[in-house]
Amino acid sequence: MQETIRKFKEILAKLNAYQHALGVMQYDSETAMPRAGAAGYAAAMGALSEEVYKLQTSDAFKGAVRELLSRKAELDEITRREAEVLGEEMARMDCVPVQEFVEYQTELGLASSAWREAKQRSDYALFAPHLQKLLDSTRRFARYYAPDRDPYDVLLDEYEKGMTQAELDRFFGTLRENLMPLVQRVAERADAVDDRFLFGHFPVAQQRRLAGAVMEVMGLDRSRCALGEVEHPFTTNFSKNDVRITTHYHEESLASSLYSVIHEGGHALYELNTDDALIGSPLAGGASMGMHESQSRLYENLIGRSAGFARFLFPKVQALFPAQLAGVTAQDFYRAVNRSAPSLIRIDADELTYPFHILIRYELEKRLVAGDLPLQDLPAEWNRLYKEVLGVAVPDDAHGVLQDSHWSGGSFGYFPSYAIGSAYGAQILESMKKDLDVDALTEAGNLAPITAWLAERIYRFGKVKTPGELLRSACGADFDPQFYVDYLTRKYTALYNL
Amino acid sequence: MQETIRKFKEILAKLNAYQHALGVMQYDSETAMPRAGAAGYAAAMGALSEEVYKLQTSDAFKGAVRELLSRKAELDEITRREAEVLGEEMARMDCVPVQEFVEYQTELGLASSAWREAKQRSDYALFAPHLQKLLDSTRRFARYYAPDRDPYDVLLDEYEKGMTQAELDRFFGTLRENLMPLVQRVAERADAVDDRFLFGHFPVAQQRRLAGAVMEVMGLDRSRCALGEVEHPFTTNFSKNDVRITTHYHEESLASSLYSVIHEGGHALYELNTDDALIGSPLAGGASMGMHESQSRLYENLIGRSAGFARFLFPKVQALFPAQLAGVTAQDFYRAVNRSAPSLIRIDADELTYPFHILIRYELEKRLVAGDLPLQDLPAEWNRLYKEVLGVAVPDDAHGVLQDSHWSGGSFGYFPSYAIGSAYGAQILESMKKDLDVDALTEAGNLAPITAWLAERIYRFGKVKTPGELLRSACGADFDPQFYVDYLTRKYTALYNL
Repeated sequence: MQETIRKFKEILAKLNAYQHALGVMQYDSETAMPRAGAAGYAAAMGALSEEVYKLQTSDAFKGAVRELLSRKAELDEITRREAEVLGEEMARMDCVPVQEFVEYQTELGLASSAWREAKQRSDYALFAPHLQKLLDSTRRFARYYAPDRDPYDVLLDEYEKGMTQAELDRFFGTLRENLMPLVQRVAERADAVDDRFLFGHFPVAQQRRLAGAVMEVMGLDRSRCALGEVEHPFTTNFSKNDVRITTHYHEESLASSLYSVIHEGGHALYELNTDDALIGSPLAGGASMGMHESQSRLYENLIGRSAGFARFLFPKVQALFPAQLAGVTAQDFYRAVNRSAPSLIRIDADELTYPFHILIRYELEKRLVAGDLPLQDLPAEWNRLYKEVLGVAVPDDAHGVLQDSHWSGGSFGYFPSYAIGSAYGAQILESMKKDLDVDALTEAGNLAPITAWLAERIYRFGKVKTPGELLRSACGADFDPQFYVDYLTRKYTALYNL
Repeated sequence: MQETIRKFKEILAKLNAYQHALGVMQYDSETAMPRAGAAGYAAAMGALSEEVYKLQTSDAFKGAVRELLSRKAELDEITRREAEVLGEEMARMDCVPVQEFVEYQTELGLASSAWREAKQRSDYALFAPHLQKLLDSTRRFARYYAPDRDPYDVLLDEYEKGMTQAELDRFFGTLRENLMPLVQRVAERADAVDDRFLFGHFPVAQQRRLAGAVMEVMGLDRSRCALGEVEHPFTTNFSKNDVRITTHYHEESLASSLYSVIHEGGHALYELNTDDALIGSPLAGGASMGMHESQSRLYENLIGRSAGFARFLFPKVQALFPAQLAGVTAQDFYRAVNRSAPSLIRIDADELTYPFHILIRYELEKRLVAGDLPLQDLPAEWNRLYKEVLGVAVPDDAHGVLQDSHWSGGSFGYFPSYAIGSAYGAQILESMKKDLDVDALTEAGNLAPITAWLAERIYRFGKVKTPGELLRSACGADFDPQFYVDYLTRKYTALYNL
């Protein structure tokens, strides 16, 4: 048994080294690589990924995992969870015939290029045949894996362990029922909030200083967390001691980079505070997509866009941009960064309308996976739902069904985690308020106790606990969307004097 | 045979992928990695390097190389040279018993840390025992490889194929005889050139613009060549289409970053113009250390610090720093960036005194490798030579024998390539002048024909030709240091009105 564990950990260490290398190459390709480097980069990534695949599917590794799973009772908690998580991944992979897997990988590459071109030309027909193939494969793979379960539930499980359609139907149903009227009333009063001072000329050098100041307030130690500049912000990490957040400075917008830094900073805090015992383990990092997103959104919205934090932050922002923000108050700033108006593009949506962008995608991909929605009808259905739910008219597919890359990457069942994350965040914050005076801490810019609370109850566990277990241990209750509904209702009713 | 070639190229492609990954990780560690990422980075690098070592020493690879070498006549030129170059590397490695190789690798790590600490504390005694071990191993390895040859010649061959002590003795002898009197006369008139306006306050944002402008003049296409910021500038590349130059902006110095960009840009042009047929081959890139350095120094000094280029460049520099350079002329600028004064630190040395820093290291390492210089006498000998050759008194070992990292990295025989490079450059430029009006092109900032000339005769060949073959094909003659002596004599005699 000791020998099996040793062999298992040895392969994990090697996999970790490859994934470290692949991660750095990916990061480099978005932050530093000159454009023409793409071909060499793809070739090197391909060769390294092949080694990862070989290791993951080697008899030595599979045998070790199987043996560990057969004698779980003898394992320490971390090794047991590693074996379980990897065993599940293995089972998902093993049930797909190699030939089909290879074809799917090839199709992913083609679909991704086709989507990019289709979006650029706003021509859905270029992408539809690829989407069909990806959908067919995805559905088939889900059936191979769990012939008796609903395929969409199988997919959800991959991104948010334990999440089901039944639960999401309830979740989105609650949002529709409770928040759609609010969205509509706010939309009618859109002009009640003026955010024009957030747009103008904000030199990048000053924005960089603001980003640095925000990182300091968030306790993002620069010796462990770097800030890079990219086209589309993201967070990545190669260990808990090497985390990279990124941002994009738009000279004409004050809030864009500011809130992207806070959002990515929330992701980073999760990684930075994983337990040391998980360094190099596949259990390091967030428990699920939804749980990770709960932390980025908790910091971005529930803390970062709160009235208290606005009072703390605004004087610092104003000191950096005195001319642009002359005559603006902290209250003006608070209202402006929370302005809500239904819009076309998910990634630009405000906190209140955001979950409805997800609701639309959820409804559609559920039907797509079930085979209830022919692909030729998808754009029209997309547009119909945007009109029905958000009241906006989609002018073309580039601003409609082609806006996101997720489906072109084969990710069906991923979107819900964005909305679930926001709802987790609201529930977690309510629980935190029983222990901490969150409002006072936020207004004082003293976020360390908040992060410490989260680290103790969520961050340190990595993937050792499932999202459901974490919620129960952090909140003493199962997932309950009502906290999210109440939070948004309270905030936006006050903000718009409804 | 075809099967052997296929297998050989397959392993080369995999090695190339690993080296790409390792290169990107190395670059990232110097440009982006947060400090605490070092431990994870070292572990990942170690695991990947082990895979490289396994591949390079695999029976499959060795067997393929051996078979190719036994049937050279049947091979195309590139495959033949690949087999030769790799066969030689293999022979160097194979003759060292594995146990000794592993011990040496471990000692390299220890020596590097010891050197760092020794330099910081200016305490040579901390480093000396490690230097002794590295020297002993290096000498032993050279003997294993070529028992009948002088060990220092064997080492030289590794950095500059075909270079010998006999030739270097002639080279440095020529410099001593012809240039030392010039160095001394210039030193006596050091005050004749005023470079104080190069020091002051030069905001980084403006320096970045200058770096961009210089890259454009040099034809460094940003879609293939990126510019990064680091502590100590270097150039690296992962293919001819992904080249990274780096610089460090010192706000108090105008010339430091400017000439580092031109220097690294010269290295980059070499890589960018390697033949497409060598993409992914171990023959891509510079023919030798000396040949690579010839190109960085040709651009930095022979072109970049020429009077004509100063007339072209200075108005642009002045436009970026009008207050700092008020009243300065292009001629003042030309004189200032060429100011010569004997100094203690090699990497800060001017063009004229630079080769004498190398001469001192050459004399010392030749005696070290021959076993003629006991290590306890090394610092005193270093100081004696600095006094004798450059007329400067070394205050402590941090500014003396401990200043460079090379010996701590086991690199004996590397230093000469720096001086050889400058001399190659002078010879190559003289040859170019038969075909091109180099001075007129330089003064017009029209460097494209110069780069094209070099690409045609040197860059495109990568390592397909040896440095000696390149010189003969580019200049129609063997290496001749007289061009270098004449160039420096002409330039500095005029500059100091001697």
